[in-house]
This record gives sequence, structure tokens and C-alpha cells, in this order.
Amino acid sequence: MTSPAAEMLAARGQWFAAPGPLGEAILSTRVRLARNVRGLRFPPRALPEELEGVLHRVEAAAGQVPMLRGGRFLAMERLSALERQFLLERHLASHDLASDGARRGLCCSADESAALLVNEEDHLRIQALRAGFQLDACFAAATALEDQLESHLEYAFADDFGYLTACPTNVGTGLRASVLIHLPALVLTRRIKKVLSGVAQVGLAVRGFYGEGTDVLGHFFQISNQITLGEKEAQTLLNLERVVHQLLEQEARAREVLLKDAGDQIEDKVRRAHGTLTQAHLLSAEEAIGLASALRLGLTLELEGLPSVSAINDILLHAQPAHLQLRVGQVMDAPARQRARARLVRERLGQSRAA
Amino acid sequence: MTSPAAEMLAARGQWFAAPGPLGEAILSTRVRLARNVRGLRFPPRALPEELEGVLHRVEAAAGQVPMLRGGRFLAMERLSALERQFLLERHLASHDLASDGARRGLCCSADESAALLVNEEDHLRIQALRAGFQLDACFAAATALEDQLESHLEYAFADDFGYLTACPTNVGTGLRASVLIHLPALVLTRRIKKVLSGVAQVGLAVRGFYGEGTDVLGHFFQISNQITLGEKEAQTLLNLERVVHQLLEQEARAREVLLKDAGDQIEDKVRRAHGTLTQAHLLSAEEAIGLASALRLGLTLELEGLPSVSAINDILLHAQPAHLQLRVGQVMDAPARQRARARLVRERLGQSRAA
Repeated sequence: MTSPAAEMLAARGQWFAAPGPLGEAILSTRVRLARNVRGLRFPPRALPEELEGVLHRVEAAAGQVPMLRGGRFLAMERLSALERQFLLERHLASHDLASDGARRGLCCSADESAALLVNEEDHLRIQALRAGFQLDACFAAATALEDQLESHLEYAFADDFGYLTACPTNVGTGLRASVLIHLPALVLTRRIKKVLSGVAQVGLAVRGFYGEGTDVLGHFFQISNQITLGEKEAQTLLNLERVVHQLLEQEARAREVLLKDAGDQIEDKVRRAHGTLTQAHLLSAEEAIGLASALRLGLTLELEGLPSVSAINDILLHAQPAHLQLRVGQVMDAPARQRARARLVRERLGQSRAA
Repeated sequence: MTSPAAEMLAARGQWFAAPGPLGEAILSTRVRLARNVRGLRFPPRALPEELEGVLHRVEAAAGQVPMLRGGRFLAMERLSALERQFLLERHLASHDLASDGARRGLCCSADESAALLVNEEDHLRIQALRAGFQLDACFAAATALEDQLESHLEYAFADDFGYLTACPTNVGTGLRASVLIHLPALVLTRRIKKVLSGVAQVGLAVRGFYGEGTDVLGHFFQISNQITLGEKEAQTLLNLERVVHQLLEQEARAREVLLKDAGDQIEDKVRRAHGTLTQAHLLSAEEAIGLASALRLGLTLELEGLPSVSAINDILLHAQPAHLQLRVGQVMDAPARQRARARLVRERLGQSRAA
């Protein structure tokens, strides 16, 4: 039997197949809506049989929903640790969902742009993903999926609060909009700390490559709203959009400083990263992300002869540990992964070098 | 007027054009004979006009000598600092000859394999150079040149000592035979220190890439005899030859250990060196030598897809600072040299990659 992860690995036409708007700086946009089924205890307090019930109800509802037609429903506990890790790397599952699969589920559309995370902290996390910077489109997709589901499920809602959630930090809109943004010039000019503390001051959170509690890798930052109570969704999105545009401007200014003060050094860094990616025999995931980050910086500096954004994104995705192991079809130790990762990257860059 | 260095830069058919015997491990062999003209004070004690006289006598003699026919005579004081540095990088001039050109000269054959260093520490250093490991051929060439010169000059000689020299360390045979050997595996397995202390114990000297008092670069070592008094030339050569063969065996054993214990890490190091050389935008001379050294190691490990020994030697030669500046035709500061060096290396490797 083919594993669902292997099928997803082979699938084409995903939301991330081509870079989206402002794709050189922004990897992806995500909107999640936290919702719970009215009248049932929220997951942290629910009995196992109640969670089973939610899982079945959501699976049944998802089967009826147009946006998920042709998609898949995955019972997390039937997946291997490697497959759950794969879904995390794919930005489909959250850490919580991937780390403990018991009575948890994931529904996603065929192109993986729409998903439901079931029985994570809340009964439902309704998720929309897009390549590049697409806050409005993500929000529209998430609310469309929310609406379609509402024909089959009633959400826990209180007039004086809004949507009710397991953790008070999500009560109200239940909206978490986030943007995965690449800010290498701000890092290299050592301005990033100041800039990000400004971001925190306007009520936004800054996280690492894989979300909450994860490391910053390759100068990628996930920026998301914190406030869900007493603020309309439109205001939340507008605030995030404004800050992202400010970050892009600050990054552009930092890039000019870099080019002026250290143009040769930066080009050297980018070119060496390219040389290492095309020749290395061993590559750790962390190093691959760092090198891919340098190539992306090179593209924003308009250096010639580099791989395309798509090719670099392809590496960022497929060089991840679970992606790599599922591709080879076996669990590998760290040295074997490093060899396989280097081989994959060499093959991909050999085929996808820009003209 | 074209500078002699520029002409030499453009010339083909030099002794180093193709790697010699055991060329993967041994870059070159050199024999120098220290000689002085009978009846004249040795350079450290001579008056300026005496040195002028020696210079003219040697120039006249060199013009008559078959082995130097078609070659050139360079009055060092008429050369720029850059050109003198070029001759040092070419292994034609010594440090002494290159650093102070006053009343000093260099004669060399068209292919640069035979040379006379005039008014360095001694009136004459008769030099023969060969690619790879060719002690006997070098010694034969040096003594042939010595014989041919002897038709025109009489050497200072004492029956109880042998040839007389300015420094007592050269008295006797006046012979200094040296081999430039590449020992990367002994360095990487940390055996080199012990091995080289054994070399010193049998009366040989170990020096750096550019001879006495210079740094070890790229795991290249210059091994030469110390003893010139009370030992026949044949014995000196045999002793050096025996030690070089021992070093080659020890290097081969270290290579086996490396491959067994850290084959992937070593291949990774070699491949990354290749990637950096083919892509870097800035390269220091020291780094270029180190990376070229890694490629040479890769060839001895029979890794595929690497540049040939000739191509690597070409980089070792032409990436040197004076070679680089004479090629471009101007004195450059360090950053400009690093850019030009990286460009040169990219071009050379692009053209000379092995099939």
C-alpha cells in the first residue's frame, strides 16, 4: 500500500509549485481559524470517546465540503512518526498535531492549500495556505472553508466574546494570520533585532521557520498577529500587511547598504553557497537552508547565473529530513541523510539552473 | 617595451607544463649547486665594483653556454618589485635574490629548467628544475650546466673541503637538492609532525612552499638535504630519494586510513573545495592554494569529475599575486587581487574540467 505521504510527495500542482506575489522575499502566507464544535468539551478537557466523536463528525463533514473534494483525510495515529514529521515540514500539521497523533486528524484539499487540523488544541483549526504574500486570498479561502463546514457543524460562539477557544489567547476572531518572510540583509547588517522588537511592539509575534518555539533558520521569520479579541479580522489583516510592507522596505534599504559597503563580500558569500550546494557530498538540513537562503539573497541582488526562486524553494522543501527519507523510502541515520540530501540538491540544481 | 616577466608569463613549453613522474604527489624537484669564482671575494664581503665585475663575467659566460642558448639574462635591479616577486613565485629566484636586486642577476634557459642565480649569497647558484620526482635528471642537468660554465669561469675549490661557499653550511659539494611534496593525508590524520621529525633526524630539512623561512601552504612541504660536507653527491641524492619514497608510502597508508575512517567527510571536503573554486567571487592566494591542495587530494583518492593535475598546477602557479598582477598588467590592491584571482580560477576550471 502506498503511504499518503508518498502520494503527496509525488503530487504536482500544489499551492507552493510556483512562487507567489512578492515571492522573492515572502515564502508563504497562512491563515488559521480556531473553531470548536458547540456543546462539546474542548480537546484539553474532552474524554477520549468525545474526541473520537469529533474526529468522525469532522471527517463526515469534510467529505461533503466542496473545497476539500478530491482531498484526503488522515488519521494521525495511523501515520508513522516519519509521515507526521513530513506533514509538519509541509506546513500542514502543527507541532502539537505531529507530536501526538492520538485521536487527531488532518483533512486537506488535493493541492494542500486548504486544510483542517482536528483535535489539536481546539476541535478545528481551519487553514489556508498560499505562496508569496496573499493575506486577503488566504483569509477568503479560510472563511469560505469555514462557511462550507458550517452547513454541517455548529461552532462554539458567545456574543460577548466571539468564537470560543481552548486557550484564551485565541478567543474572539480565532484568527492567526502569518507570513514567512526572508530578511537576510537585515540580519547581515545587524539591524534585525531592532526591527523585530518594533514588530513585537505593535502586537505581532515573530517565530522561527517551523512556527512557535522553533529556531530561526536561514534568516526566515514567521510574523503573525497576537490579538484576537476586540479587533475585527480586517483590522488584524491590515495591521499585519502594513508591518510586512515596512519590513520589506527596511530589508530593501539594508540591501542597499550591503551592496554599497560589502558588495563583493556578499556576492562572494552567495557564489560560494551556490558552489557548495552544487558540489557538496554531505549536507545537513540546517546548512542546506542557510545556503538556499544565501541564494535567495543573491536573486534579490540580481546576480546572474543563480538557480530560480522555484528551484531554491524546491530545495528548501525537499531537503527536509522527512521529505528526504520518504523519497528514498526508508528511515536513514544522520550521515545517510546528509549524503542523500547532498545528492538530491546536486540533482535538482543540475536540472534547474537558470539560463 | 614588453617586460621579460610578461614574456615569460606568455611562454609555453616550460618545464612545469606537464606533471612529471609521481606528479600527483610531487610538484617539482630542484637541484642547486653553490659555486664561487676563484680569486674573488664572496658577495657578503665583496665591494660593489667586484660584484659588478662578477655580474658581467657571468653574463658573458652565460651567453656562450649551450644550455642557456635562447634564454634570458635579467639584471635584477632593472626589474620592478612585482617582476622580482614573479621570479620568486616561479621558483627561479630565491628570497634573497628577489628582495634586493642590487648587482644581482638571473640567467635562465628558454624553458626555465636551467638557471643561474648571480651574486646571491654566493657568486653563483646553478639551478636545475624538473616537474615531478626527477632527482637524477636535475642533478645531471645542474652538473652539465656547471661543466659548460667551467669553460669560462674557474670555481673556488679547496682539496681538503671541496667547493668553497660564503656560508659554511654549503661548503663541500655545494649541493642542495629539494623536492616539493604534497602530503595532505598525513596532515589530516595528524601524523605529519611525527613523520617530519623523523625526516629531520636523518639530516634533511623541511621547509614551506616558497623555501626557507616560508609557511607551509596547502600541505606542500619542501624536503632538502642539509649535509654538504664529507658526503658524496650520489649519497646525498640517494638519501633524499629514499626518504621521499618513505614519505610517499606513509602518505599512502594515511590515505587508506582517511578513506576508511572518514571517506565521506574527505570527499565532502574535496567537493566543496571544487565548488568554492568554481564559484567564489573573492579568493585569497592562501585559500586558493588550500583549495587546490584539496583537489589534488581528491585526485589521489580517484574521485571523478575533478580538474586534472595539470589544471590544478596551473592554478597553483597563476593564482599567485605577482603572476596575477602581471597578467592583468597593473599593480592591484588586495581586494582587487582577490576578485581577479577568483575570476582567473573560474575561467581556468571552466575550460579545463576533466570529462
